[in-house]
Amino acid sequence: MHFAAVLPLQSGAQIRDYCLSFETYGTLNADRSNAVLICHALNASHHVAGVYPGQDRSEGWWDNMIGPGKSLDTDKFFVIGVNNLGSCFGSTGPMHTNPDTGRVYGADFPVITVEDWVNAQARLLDALGIETLAAVMGGSLGGMQALSWTLQYPQRVRHAVVVASAPNLTAENIAFNEVARRAIVTDPDFHGGHFYAQGVIPKRGLRIARMIGHITYLSDDVMNEKFGRQLRSALSKEAAAAPGRPKQGTAPSGGREDTPVPSVGAYLYSTQEVEFQIESYLRYQGDKFADYFDANTYLLITRALDYFDPARTYGGDLSHALARASCKFLLVSFTTDWRFAPKRSREIVKALLDNRRDVSYAEIDAPHGHDAFLLDDARYMAVVRSYFDGIGKELRAAS
Amino acid sequence: MHFAAVLPLQSGAQIRDYCLSFETYGTLNADRSNAVLICHALNASHHVAGVYPGQDRSEGWWDNMIGPGKSLDTDKFFVIGVNNLGSCFGSTGPMHTNPDTGRVYGADFPVITVEDWVNAQARLLDALGIETLAAVMGGSLGGMQALSWTLQYPQRVRHAVVVASAPNLTAENIAFNEVARRAIVTDPDFHGGHFYAQGVIPKRGLRIARMIGHITYLSDDVMNEKFGRQLRSALSKEAAAAPGRPKQGTAPSGGREDTPVPSVGAYLYSTQEVEFQIESYLRYQGDKFADYFDANTYLLITRALDYFDPARTYGGDLSHALARASCKFLLVSFTTDWRFAPKRSREIVKALLDNRRDVSYAEIDAPHGHDAFLLDDARYMAVVRSYFDGIGKELRAAS
Repeated sequence: MHFAAVLPLQSGAQIRDYCLSFETYGTLNADRSNAVLICHALNASHHVAGVYPGQDRSEGWWDNMIGPGKSLDTDKFFVIGVNNLGSCFGSTGPMHTNPDTGRVYGADFPVITVEDWVNAQARLLDALGIETLAAVMGGSLGGMQALSWTLQYPQRVRHAVVVASAPNLTAENIAFNEVARRAIVTDPDFHGGHFYAQGVIPKRGLRIARMIGHITYLSDDVMNEKFGRQLRSALSKEAAAAPGRPKQGTAPSGGREDTPVPSVGAYLYSTQEVEFQIESYLRYQGDKFADYFDANTYLLITRALDYFDPARTYGGDLSHALARASCKFLLVSFTTDWRFAPKRSREIVKALLDNRRDVSYAEIDAPHGHDAFLLDDARYMAVVRSYFDGIGKELRAAS
Repeated sequence: MHFAAVLPLQSGAQIRDYCLSFETYGTLNADRSNAVLICHALNASHHVAGVYPGQDRSEGWWDNMIGPGKSLDTDKFFVIGVNNLGSCFGSTGPMHTNPDTGRVYGADFPVITVEDWVNAQARLLDALGIETLAAVMGGSLGGMQALSWTLQYPQRVRHAVVVASAPNLTAENIAFNEVARRAIVTDPDFHGGHFYAQGVIPKRGLRIARMIGHITYLSDDVMNEKFGRQLRSALSKEAAAAPGRPKQGTAPSGGREDTPVPSVGAYLYSTQEVEFQIESYLRYQGDKFADYFDANTYLLITRALDYFDPARTYGGDLSHALARASCKFLLVSFTTDWRFAPKRSREIVKALLDNRRDVSYAEIDAPHGHDAFLLDDARYMAVVRSYFDGIGKELRAAS
């Protein structure tokens, strides 16, 4: 959908003549009361669920959660997925042309905040004729948008579902984002953010950024379970059997006593070759990401994460900051998520309870770290299903 | 000290005509029984303690621990600090000339393991005429060397002090090392590890590597306490006061209702400028490191960390692997260390107890993460002091 009108941004800048890509699932009911807005996180898009023609299976990032008969049941709710401004999956972003200059935005694309995204989403709802959302829902950065909806447009949201999120980033979170950004910005192929014209892509930086990201999305436990210290499997056996590869360490000739060095098995003894499976996994993820994700978008989205902090203008008092929220809430966190730890969700819960809001909170014991919010987990899915069943009952009672 | 003889390495390669830089503190007693070897971690050196002529204060990395009257009292013990092979602080490393080719080693420097370092250290002790160590001591990677001493040369070690260490790296630890290595190796200035001849240094990669390292050395808590979400202080006030900088966000014109955007204070709204203090800190640490540390050394040392795994050739059975150790042990860990977590030290303690070894273990409640092993902490220093007092008593009883 095209928007001609100027959108003022929190930075003081503005953007005009922009497009938002969106998808909808299910049917808007007669009194327009069953709409659910899904807000996406770092590298996701408006394609939340469903299968495109010609595809074998869904590439929707929350297809396990959203669809006919699923936890968020599109037979009952009208679900809207929207791609955020600055993204690289359809909505206006850094690779598009700035109408004011006729040139590709590149690094000149204005810095966008969570609040800006919410304002843009509100205009989309205006255009769709949706005054009030049955719910706004998101995980991680998407959860920040859902929370911000309840503060920026309290009268337009009946429920907010905030999954694996936080009231702001910790210093450690900002630090990881900063390293990723520096890797991108200092890649010689970044060209100050105007690499499109040079016909290159700062893939080195994007790969590093994604590798760092993946480490923080997983828990230490699940990494140990999935990869542990396993060597690159098949290869390692061949390497061990190959002639010329040392199979056994040698005791130093200068030792005073018997000093057997244990068998070295299949180590390659290389600083650059893939030795452990975890390395292979990370390199693969980095390569894949660098092929499809935009470097300027990565900078913008990580910065939006950094900046989000609704308590900031209230002297850090989150309870004061959340006083504007009037809807009901479901908060969900995952025990092994160290990026958006349960204690961060509990801060939101406490601040809402301080304001005597109606809050449900589920802390799911799952091993998958931050990634858990995207994965199937029977208890997680059941909690969300139950919550939306409740919203469905409210809707039927009101109609 | 120069070593002409070939040192066979665990990889099957070998090295000859190498030098080891070392320093000693205190006096070797008459029966040569009071020597303590200190093993260093990633970016440290043989300069463990003391003040060089012309310096105001010590640059020794464990000067708070080691010296006259300190926890490891150099009035009583003869302390040896040795720089490891492959390092960039004096001992033979990648920036030196390969005697076999007459060319600088660069990326051709052989991959070195913890076991190799220990063998080289044993030859140094041979040359110094020290048969048996009163203790071998190290933190982090240095702790791995201390542990390996007890397995490679069990009869030459009376005590091992293993601080903030682990019996091997977890997948997450390897992952962080791998990202750092990829940042270095993919820096165009790396030139396949032969950058010396090009007159360049892969500083971009080194900076990223160090930034990642620093995040993992600190705890989330201490990062929040030290930096939190603080903006780059003085700058932020100026920026907020400067004309033309937006001080206040603007409500979107298209909103259906009153949607005040909170005051934006002093955010710069930039993806590349330093916004938060943690960013400034990390960039500073990265710049400093890139000015003095060698890229090939970084690859070698992180790989030595990855490879260390004494239980590997015992099917992962650490108790079996540690059966060779015959000395007494002090293990120390720190509660907020998530890089070498207390549970990793406890694995070593358990394996030693399975072998009925004499083990002391202190888990220090300190907020500083992995860095705690280098910092002053009254309880930590007291534990080490008390342990060395005990060793001193044993020495006096034996003489």
